[in-house]
Amino acid sequence: MNTDRIILGIDPGTNIMGYGLIHNHGENIELITMGILKLNKFNNQALKLKKIFERTLSLIKEYKPDELAIEAPFYGKNIQSMLKLGRAQGVAIAAALYRSVPIFEYSPKKIKQSITGKGSASKEQVAAMLINLLSINETPESLDATDGLAAAVCHYFQKRISTKKEKYSDWNSFISNNPDRVV
Amino acid sequence: MNTDRIILGIDPGTNIMGYGLIHNHGENIELITMGILKLNKFNNQALKLKKIFERTLSLIKEYKPDELAIEAPFYGKNIQSMLKLGRAQGVAIAAALYRSVPIFEYSPKKIKQSITGKGSASKEQVAAMLINLLSINETPESLDATDGLAAAVCHYFQKRISTKKEKYSDWNSFISNNPDRVV
Repeated sequence: MNTDRIILGIDPGTNIMGYGLIHNHGENIELITMGILKLNKFNNQALKLKKIFERTLSLIKEYKPDELAIEAPFYGKNIQSMLKLGRAQGVAIAAALYRSVPIFEYSPKKIKQSITGKGSASKEQVAAMLINLLSINETPESLDATDGLAAAVCHYFQKRISTKKEKYSDWNSFISNNPDRVV
Repeated sequence: MNTDRIILGIDPGTNIMGYGLIHNHGENIELITMGILKLNKFNNQALKLKKIFERTLSLIKEYKPDELAIEAPFYGKNIQSMLKLGRAQGVAIAAALYRSVPIFEYSPKKIKQSITGKGSASKEQVAAMLINLLSINETPESLDATDGLAAAVCHYFQKRISTKKEKYSDWNSFISNNPDRVV
């Protein structure tokens, strides 16, 4: 497999958004950048959503990722928090849709499983594996940044074990080839 | 009050999105257009979200609304459907955020109350009031279109009874003046 692509991983939450970018060339992956967007300083939800949208859009503009991997929990504490989470995911997804970046979503359990081999791994264990896998020297400023990065690396692992060799040149061919993998 | 503005009302759902545009000049309102976007023909959620985003963006581009009123239920049957609904709302909200259109959200009950005087009014009762209020001649192609329109008219009523006279020239001043009214 002669892959050469950039994967953007994000973990959009209502208080913090973590993101990571990796470059995947053949069987190798390397870290491009990772970071967090703190949202709890904004006192209303509209502004939080605006910031998530703008940051996702600016990451896409700057790094031109070929694919977006998103951490997407499918359940939560309550109806209210799921609606808020859905909105946060929705604005991040909209930014990718707007720039025609294909979207892949993974549950937190799937991401942990893929990176550590254990679906119940702690954030610290996931971070430790990522630091090792990507030879990261600095300590990530927050574990939430590694959550976004973890989504990107999980996506790399998924594609690697996939037997499919297609390259999707556009959104439509991606959709028709991956009806079950998109959001 | 010497208002002259265009209000876009939308009701983004996971199977159908209804929308309506009204022109509010002083104390008068008139219908510009209304319609629906059928989403159940699309068999995956990514495509549904893409269609909601694109339609909202194209409505904003074509009609240049000054404000967006969105019907936003705060509770639902279950966690899964709320996450999906949150995403549908999120992409519509992102389109407005992207074009700097201020967003106002109203619960279904508030909209019904505002238009018919009864929070428990049926869709048919809301539609009948709208047909009367806006002197609509044709029968709306679907009641879902009137749901979007109802959000716009509800917003007109809210602003009319408001004692505030400020005009918000930009998103930031809107936010700072309306911390509790935005999403």
